[in-house]
Amino acid sequence: MNKNAITFPQGFTAAGISCGIKKNGNKDLALICSDVPSVGAGVFTTNVVKGHSLLLTMQNIKNDFTKAVLINSGNANACIGEEGDQIAKTAILALAKELNCNDNEILFGSTGVIGIPLNINNLIQGITQISKLSSIEGANDAKDAILTTDLISKESTRQFELNNKIIKIGGIAKGSGMIHPNMATMIGIITTDISISKEMLQIAIKEVCDKSFNRISVDGDTSVCDMVVILANGIAQNDTITSKDTNYNIFIKELEIVCTELAKMVVKDGEGATKLIQITVNGANSKLDAYKIVTSVAKSPLVKTAFFGEDANWGRILTACGYSEAKFDPNLVDIYIGDLLVCKNGCGLSFDENLAKKILQEHEINVTINLHIGNFTDRIWTCDFSYDYVKINGSYRS
Amino acid sequence: MNKNAITFPQGFTAAGISCGIKKNGNKDLALICSDVPSVGAGVFTTNVVKGHSLLLTMQNIKNDFTKAVLINSGNANACIGEEGDQIAKTAILALAKELNCNDNEILFGSTGVIGIPLNINNLIQGITQISKLSSIEGANDAKDAILTTDLISKESTRQFELNNKIIKIGGIAKGSGMIHPNMATMIGIITTDISISKEMLQIAIKEVCDKSFNRISVDGDTSVCDMVVILANGIAQNDTITSKDTNYNIFIKELEIVCTELAKMVVKDGEGATKLIQITVNGANSKLDAYKIVTSVAKSPLVKTAFFGEDANWGRILTACGYSEAKFDPNLVDIYIGDLLVCKNGCGLSFDENLAKKILQEHEINVTINLHIGNFTDRIWTCDFSYDYVKINGSYRS
Repeated sequence: MNKNAITFPQGFTAAGISCGIKKNGNKDLALICSDVPSVGAGVFTTNVVKGHSLLLTMQNIKNDFTKAVLINSGNANACIGEEGDQIAKTAILALAKELNCNDNEILFGSTGVIGIPLNINNLIQGITQISKLSSIEGANDAKDAILTTDLISKESTRQFELNNKIIKIGGIAKGSGMIHPNMATMIGIITTDISISKEMLQIAIKEVCDKSFNRISVDGDTSVCDMVVILANGIAQNDTITSKDTNYNIFIKELEIVCTELAKMVVKDGEGATKLIQITVNGANSKLDAYKIVTSVAKSPLVKTAFFGEDANWGRILTACGYSEAKFDPNLVDIYIGDLLVCKNGCGLSFDENLAKKILQEHEINVTINLHIGNFTDRIWTCDFSYDYVKINGSYRS
Repeated sequence: MNKNAITFPQGFTAAGISCGIKKNGNKDLALICSDVPSVGAGVFTTNVVKGHSLLLTMQNIKNDFTKAVLINSGNANACIGEEGDQIAKTAILALAKELNCNDNEILFGSTGVIGIPLNINNLIQGITQISKLSSIEGANDAKDAILTTDLISKESTRQFELNNKIIKIGGIAKGSGMIHPNMATMIGIITTDISISKEMLQIAIKEVCDKSFNRISVDGDTSVCDMVVILANGIAQNDTITSKDTNYNIFIKELEIVCTELAKMVVKDGEGATKLIQITVNGANSKLDAYKIVTSVAKSPLVKTAFFGEDANWGRILTACGYSEAKFDPNLVDIYIGDLLVCKNGCGLSFDENLAKKILQEHEINVTINLHIGNFTDRIWTCDFSYDYVKINGSYRS
């Protein structure tokens, strides 16, 4: 199913090629271009350690206009000192020359192994080649070229109307280890032909990321190269959004659908994952407490291995709530697995184990925790912990 | 190697039997008695959710004297509501009657599965039986009877002199999942014949736990039943320790040796563990930052699977430092695996991979992180993440 998602909005082209960064010959360089200058916005890793390409992108995103996004996979261009900054700079200068634009109009993301210098010759040759290939149909190659240990490619599109103009959004993303809220080894690229100010686009992408990409956890590890960037080129010719008006609200609702779909794909394709688990907490005392609870449960290796084993081990869920540092009364807690109440007022119920097993055998499972002490809620998506997670990560770098 | 550790100090007896709580017929009830009234102190889980036996023990530890410690394994007596409090109360009343003491002189710990009522009939019959069996030689059975998924039993002893009196310390412990600082599914029992005030004993056990049992992590999960208790019966007849004097300092040094030995045994025998990894941070800006760094690295599933795969993946170590919320400058960080410098000033070095492999093939590995921004240090012990961790925890409850 090829949606050409990233070139679905008007005025975008893309390409993906192999330039020799990945030793296995898989595609490892992606380009997304806007025909006209677009406004850009982004959300970046909170890790103190930051990749060299990402640092340059955090600078360039401040520029009034953005022309293109370049992504390489197979090497994170991180933790190699000044050489890494040089590589990033050289790459965008080369691309700017090919695209006939200013180098600060280019965003650059790198994902893959940390601490090993990227082969700059391969990269430069790749840039020369890819800049000539950008097309609407190239979207399919671009979405494959950003992947690392991902098993499936991830794309999403959405179309809606504003002022009788058709607005399109397209997105692609990659996972799939080092995934935890506040950006992981995750890169998401969104394009749209909506007309919106740079300021409002930044507010929108942050707001939406906090409900989508920042609410997923594969392993609790926040990587050094994570970014979600969005380009809006205005070709749809709606009245430009410049405030949090009705049109803004319509736009972020649609953007949230795209980002949530991509975020859930990242978790489903988490390293070794066999199940998508949605953890919801209701009735927390504060927004922060609600976040602490869902994060703690989503990160617990004991909870995640229990789901892999299809074991309705609510005791581990309650335990993870207990050490989350959130305030609550254990004697008021109810826990549901699917629709099945397994723990009432902090006590185990003698529930139907066969029914529980049936729920746990599904590929998508909802866990609901009701604290009954306040009005705040949160939810997160995580996956189970399997043998394959250990296998993949016991031998990734070598 | 049977040390009779827990009855090594004068005036203590112990026993361990099977009373039917564990379905496989393994020993599941342990008793440790002091011949004379001893002073007791303890450190308990920080989890908001607390087991019923543990809650009773937190009350009884306040009593001036402690006569005995009762531990059952196979069932945590947790999260079953008032019935759990009743079970704990009934158990210690039964034991008090047998031992002819007050029920608040008894400490009770339970470890095992959460949320399923303990069979009180089995327990009471077991108490009647075990109270008649307590002996010096019974220490061996006691140390086995507290185990759950542990593969090896854990004991340690120490002997030294104070005021020309011989002082002895003995300890036993169990792990081995849900292990993370601030008490995990971990129970430790320490006996000593030293004469010390109750107040100073409490200060001593807290001080020592913070350097030993509170500096280990198997999976980041802090359980609801964790406790370390210590009984001191004064039979050694040294001048009673009542302040932080020289004798106190000698005592806690020796106590730390026992507790550290037990704590390291717990990590080595962590579920699925194949390696003991010591993570040390130097040069942190504050004590809290040092703690955040070692905890973050020790908990990272990506770091732990890399050690399982014997992969010198320092990038994951630096990444885990980066999301620890500690403040530091990534460009100043050096990382050593064993004595091998693998990352200098935040950059990867082209180190000897064969030498790295040799270090990583050892069963005990030291990782040292030098931040070069302050004078604070911390260290933690953790283990690797293996297929067996997933196997054990994917099927524990069922």
